[in-house]
Amino acid sequence: MKLICTQENLIKALNVAEKIVGRNVNLPILNNILLETDDGQLKLSSTNLEIGLNYWTRGKIEKEGSLTVPAKIITNFVMNLPKKNIEIEVKNETLNLKCENYQAKIKGVSAQEFPIIPKIKEEPLVILPAEEFKNAANRVISSVAVSETRPEITGVFMKIEKDNLTLAATDSYRLAEKKIKLQKPVQESISMIIPRTTINELIYIIGENQGELKISISQNQILFNFNNINLVSRLIDGQYPDYQQIIPNSFKIKAIIKTAELKNAVKIAGFFTNAQVSGIKIKLDLPTNKIKVNAETGEVGASNSEVEAKIEGDSVEVIFNYKYILDALNNMLTDQVILEMNDSSSPVLLKPENVKDYLYLIMPIKTE
Amino acid sequence: MKLICTQENLIKALNVAEKIVGRNVNLPILNNILLETDDGQLKLSSTNLEIGLNYWTRGKIEKEGSLTVPAKIITNFVMNLPKKNIEIEVKNETLNLKCENYQAKIKGVSAQEFPIIPKIKEEPLVILPAEEFKNAANRVISSVAVSETRPEITGVFMKIEKDNLTLAATDSYRLAEKKIKLQKPVQESISMIIPRTTINELIYIIGENQGELKISISQNQILFNFNNINLVSRLIDGQYPDYQQIIPNSFKIKAIIKTAELKNAVKIAGFFTNAQVSGIKIKLDLPTNKIKVNAETGEVGASNSEVEAKIEGDSVEVIFNYKYILDALNNMLTDQVILEMNDSSSPVLLKPENVKDYLYLIMPIKTE
Repeated sequence: MKLICTQENLIKALNVAEKIVGRNVNLPILNNILLETDDGQLKLSSTNLEIGLNYWTRGKIEKEGSLTVPAKIITNFVMNLPKKNIEIEVKNETLNLKCENYQAKIKGVSAQEFPIIPKIKEEPLVILPAEEFKNAANRVISSVAVSETRPEITGVFMKIEKDNLTLAATDSYRLAEKKIKLQKPVQESISMIIPRTTINELIYIIGENQGELKISISQNQILFNFNNINLVSRLIDGQYPDYQQIIPNSFKIKAIIKTAELKNAVKIAGFFTNAQVSGIKIKLDLPTNKIKVNAETGEVGASNSEVEAKIEGDSVEVIFNYKYILDALNNMLTDQVILEMNDSSSPVLLKPENVKDYLYLIMPIKTE
Repeated sequence: MKLICTQENLIKALNVAEKIVGRNVNLPILNNILLETDDGQLKLSSTNLEIGLNYWTRGKIEKEGSLTVPAKIITNFVMNLPKKNIEIEVKNETLNLKCENYQAKIKGVSAQEFPIIPKIKEEPLVILPAEEFKNAANRVISSVAVSETRPEITGVFMKIEKDNLTLAATDSYRLAEKKIKLQKPVQESISMIIPRTTINELIYIIGENQGELKISISQNQILFNFNNINLVSRLIDGQYPDYQQIIPNSFKIKAIIKTAELKNAVKIAGFFTNAQVSGIKIKLDLPTNKIKVNAETGEVGASNSEVEAKIEGDSVEVIFNYKYILDALNNMLTDQVILEMNDSSSPVLLKPENVKDYLYLIMPIKTE
């Protein structure tokens, strides 16, 4: 392999490819990035066996070929080079790089030993602005279950039906759901569970870049194509819980509050919780139109905050895990937020004011 | 105790006091900050037994008193309050804080149980611009020994003689020395060893603030006074090595190089070192007027960089620990740096071009 590319193009590709690379002691080749010439371009590939990435970047190919080299060392080296052309050449399973007065020889491993990244040839099922998908994913991902006891909730649920794409995530204590309108309706509805790490990678890859995101499905694999990048991932087997049935159809109590004010009160209350006591008390006080946020632990002390609100229905007192309500409020993005509930033991709904495509449901902590 | 102060003043004081607080399981009161009224002001104190801090801040004192409370919880609480007045009151060993619609009760421990922070009544030995001291300290502190085997080099050496204040630090592999000119000469010369953590705290306290730094000494204690803050620290016992004798009086070889270019070449070479091989080869090549920086490890590969230089005397090849030379170059601050040496096995001197008050000496790694 022999080619010339610019430092700027190569480091952009390496930074994306390097993120997938795992630290696999049993299979050290997974720490490597595969560089190969492909149809007049330089193709970089990396995989952790769950996710595979292909990144095509421009280069002047002088001789076809391939080699895998440790991701960290090539990325570090290229990152510190001047923004000039880099000459790349493979000799004796060693990658030779030259850029102005800097040279490196990086020992590699043959491309034959690199795992095959599955190819998905299916036509895209949906095409949408990548930024829109990224923003939606960002608002559900924190609700994905961390524990592996129920594998089916360790991913983001995606449902595509007519002109709706829905992303949802739950850890069984709280649930976040975001809907996106598609330009073109799909023929058949489909749903799947995408691993959390895949969604995280995709969020990172899209970053602040613009472009179309094309999503294709093949059996238990999903392909995200974004500009010159392909991200292939396995899907999670299993039946996602029918979360719609736990969202109450009607609510007796409703409050409208300034998001920032409630967030600050909850944040402060959080300091007065500990590993044993994670609950904070939120009281909707109908007569005074105030929300009282209270936390108390024996060893630390107590905090009490009051936030003005517009309350309808009744007074009620609910105990929340403060992390869940803080996360919900961080995802609201509007100046005012709506809280809806029926009593102190059934799910509480949070949604941004005047926004219909996002909701966050929290199960209260039961009082003894 | 009962008083009113502003959120801005209190959080500034807490942020400084909280940094000294250690995580001491055996003596939990060290996790606390002492708040007490003192001569019409609010005084905050914290200590880790090695360093003690007093911070005076304005307050409207309504009733004298004192209490200690956990540093983390009060800092977190006050940090999230609006920029308004805070009412503080001690009731039953509990600190009651109230700011607009936010209230907290923080359980405290009596001030009687708090360690006494030594008072130093001596007149200041020297007074100098705090910023100047901070900048000097910043340029030697990374050379302080981390290992505790030789306690006398685990601190910064400070010598005050005539109108010179000298700071120096060494870990026996490299040495950094910075001199400051004093406005007023001292009568008697004095030298001492200040713990690294004390210097680090002082750097943090001075931060971007302006003011005079007053230094007083009393037996084995040192007092730094900066605006409304007193920092008292023990000094390190022992004899600091007579490092002047290892600085060569003359050099046979000299090179002038662009600091940024050499730094980049060294940084790149560093990626081609590992835990076993930390040395990089620096060759001053007289005929070509170039510095060649080379690193090689069997498993990773090799790098070669060339930097233009102005070399006088002879060609020479020296092996350095790349971390030391990188640290030296990070402290140079001038566009060009001067390297002086005699041969491949004696100390190498680095200094900024046209600057006489700073030097960095590195022992090369001996070749077998």
